[in-house]
Amino acid sequence: MTMSFKGTPSRRAFLKGAVAAGGTVASAGAASAAGDPLITEVQEWASATGEGVDATPYGLPISYESDVVRRNVEWLTADTISSINFTPIHALDGTITPQGCAFERHHSGAIDLKKEDYRLMINGLVDQPLVFTYEDLERFPRENRVYFCECAANTGMEWAGAQLNGAQFTHGMIHNMEYSGIPLRTLLEEAGVQTEGKWVYVEGADASSNGRSIPLEKAMDDVLVAFKANGEALRKEHGYPVRLVVPGWEGNMWIKWLRRIEVTTQAIESREETSKYTDTLANGIARKWTWEMDAKSVVTSPSPQAPIKHGHGPLVITGLAWSGRGAITGVDVSVDGGKTWQEARLGAPGQDKALSRFYLDYNWQGEEMFLQSRAKDSTGYVQPTKTQLRDVRGLNSIYHNNCIQTWWVKSNGEAENVEVS
Amino acid sequence: MTMSFKGTPSRRAFLKGAVAAGGTVASAGAASAAGDPLITEVQEWASATGEGVDATPYGLPISYESDVVRRNVEWLTADTISSINFTPIHALDGTITPQGCAFERHHSGAIDLKKEDYRLMINGLVDQPLVFTYEDLERFPRENRVYFCECAANTGMEWAGAQLNGAQFTHGMIHNMEYSGIPLRTLLEEAGVQTEGKWVYVEGADASSNGRSIPLEKAMDDVLVAFKANGEALRKEHGYPVRLVVPGWEGNMWIKWLRRIEVTTQAIESREETSKYTDTLANGIARKWTWEMDAKSVVTSPSPQAPIKHGHGPLVITGLAWSGRGAITGVDVSVDGGKTWQEARLGAPGQDKALSRFYLDYNWQGEEMFLQSRAKDSTGYVQPTKTQLRDVRGLNSIYHNNCIQTWWVKSNGEAENVEVS
Repeated sequence: MTMSFKGTPSRRAFLKGAVAAGGTVASAGAASAAGDPLITEVQEWASATGEGVDATPYGLPISYESDVVRRNVEWLTADTISSINFTPIHALDGTITPQGCAFERHHSGAIDLKKEDYRLMINGLVDQPLVFTYEDLERFPRENRVYFCECAANTGMEWAGAQLNGAQFTHGMIHNMEYSGIPLRTLLEEAGVQTEGKWVYVEGADASSNGRSIPLEKAMDDVLVAFKANGEALRKEHGYPVRLVVPGWEGNMWIKWLRRIEVTTQAIESREETSKYTDTLANGIARKWTWEMDAKSVVTSPSPQAPIKHGHGPLVITGLAWSGRGAITGVDVSVDGGKTWQEARLGAPGQDKALSRFYLDYNWQGEEMFLQSRAKDSTGYVQPTKTQLRDVRGLNSIYHNNCIQTWWVKSNGEAENVEVS
Repeated sequence: MTMSFKGTPSRRAFLKGAVAAGGTVASAGAASAAGDPLITEVQEWASATGEGVDATPYGLPISYESDVVRRNVEWLTADTISSINFTPIHALDGTITPQGCAFERHHSGAIDLKKEDYRLMINGLVDQPLVFTYEDLERFPRENRVYFCECAANTGMEWAGAQLNGAQFTHGMIHNMEYSGIPLRTLLEEAGVQTEGKWVYVEGADASSNGRSIPLEKAMDDVLVAFKANGEALRKEHGYPVRLVVPGWEGNMWIKWLRRIEVTTQAIESREETSKYTDTLANGIARKWTWEMDAKSVVTSPSPQAPIKHGHGPLVITGLAWSGRGAITGVDVSVDGGKTWQEARLGAPGQDKALSRFYLDYNWQGEEMFLQSRAKDSTGYVQPTKTQLRDVRGLNSIYHNNCIQTWWVKSNGEAENVEVS
């Protein structure tokens, strides 16, 4: 059913094969060009000047891309202040998420905090409590790293069954950016962690403060106190001017508007790590703490918001994969609901705790598909099915649903969120 | 003069050392916290809710960052239609350039071209001329790669001496993005290049058409027909919906609004590769073709637009380095106008034909500096001084000035573009 694009003696077979097989890649070929006014006539855009270089000091997407935006789901939360919106992953490619359409999750809304008003305190079990201004932070040695940030609740609605119709809504609480910041280790060493200090409690400057406890081992490992993302200042909605980056761990711990870091002997057991961000199992016992985001993947196109609009023949099946425990080493794709699998191509070698893009170049002849993807990471872990996950975790959880997602692609190219048993 | 941050027994020496040496990292320490109302009083942003998740479907930078924008220089060109603006590299960190502030260079302005109206023709010495719609292109196997794009005229004003006061203006005709696109090779193989075909002539849909000739060897190597940058659609000003990505080669060849690819026996010798984009030597003979961008670097901070505003002590010296011939293997920094050099730290291992970020963590005691950086690439090439470059190329060139840049940093922290002999 599939055709290989690699090693094909003549790649010209690509579109011709599609046409021969009943495809409709209509405009490819000189014949169609002859009657196409877009080819045979001089167009307006080729006969007049366009916009000058002073038009947009800071540019936005062209108006035709106005559907590639974050969206929230009104019924999901009581208000928009303690709420979520979703990255339009169905419409993106590559791995970097532009800040402008990267998901938001606030607990009391996005606050407006100037650099001049910014302070970061380190206190608790330290030799010397410290308070840093933004300018102070700019003087410490920096790192640059690309990491994904995923809300623990991403895909959470799917525990109860196929709920939300679109990859943006089922898997869009994720983004992937290049951060510039200071290793938290550097600041903690500056204050001098005392031997009894085994945890840090981190909180934000917003009203919710959203405090979380992080074991010292992680704090001293790869956590960043970040002030830039994708080269420029963090956006207001992502914690301007300073947020915590906790690679591979749930987004709730990536404290925005980072205000205070307290070194403690033990976890604080705050609201955000007891009644929230724990996972109730079938027997009523809650798993805590489930910091790491397990390996996961999703086909972003085709998908409910990105149906197949072209005819039969070549089809690019693409999606994203990630793991909070390491690098993605491979992604398998199934078109028959998990009965058989084919290895997809990674856009680039997997990077530690960052998104990977995968592609499967496929010859679609209009058959119904039950499209799935399955991520594998550098620890040897393989993404589980929904049934496997429910068997272990029951149905009470909200967070950490990393099961295999299924899109039912119909013969008309439209897709729906479904479950396969 | 420098202090090492690595291997220091106690990192607490960092700020304390600065203070002891007469620095002014005033707020770091509990003493200052006691009297700081930003610490001792409940702030407005911690006692009220912020903005909801429905506020900005597509976000922009916070208002406090309104100076981080593209800028054009009015006297540089006769109008803004055939002109340039510059990336604010002095204010960015990391390596990715956000599309919103990535430089523009147009020859007849940025045109408005819908995906539905888009056509790409491949003709000339091919077995089968082809015309692709945008939808056709979406069906071909894709790649993802990060590449820099530099205008050949970047730093061109510096041939005549230190002209423009700011890294944005001397070196800001560069950006670095993750592209998703189809290898041009794939499309050429689809059309079937005939044995006499040795070059491709590529042109855009804008009025200038900006045609350039590319040897078939390069066209079949790493050139991409790209439709996404940093995950999302190309911006209008960067060639929406489709541009050519010609890794490591001058930006003028990265045809925007890509319209046609003609396979030819030889170079077309178009305006853009004869009277323009060639380099006149001292003897009046023009070098052609100078496609590759030689290894180059610049300190982005401190720099004229990014003076040192803090006191003595720790200072992060940072900048960008790149090479069109391979990966950056190292960057040296000099504070004495090139008499002595220290190896900077790369933010990440150098990637082929992509920007590298470098850092030198420095202990500044208010002394005047003649700050320079020197890039080295994987071919063994070392970035030359201005004198070395002028000795070989004379003073008539406009393009391909990759000489070492000097910022004179004064004892008050302000910086100026200067030349050192």
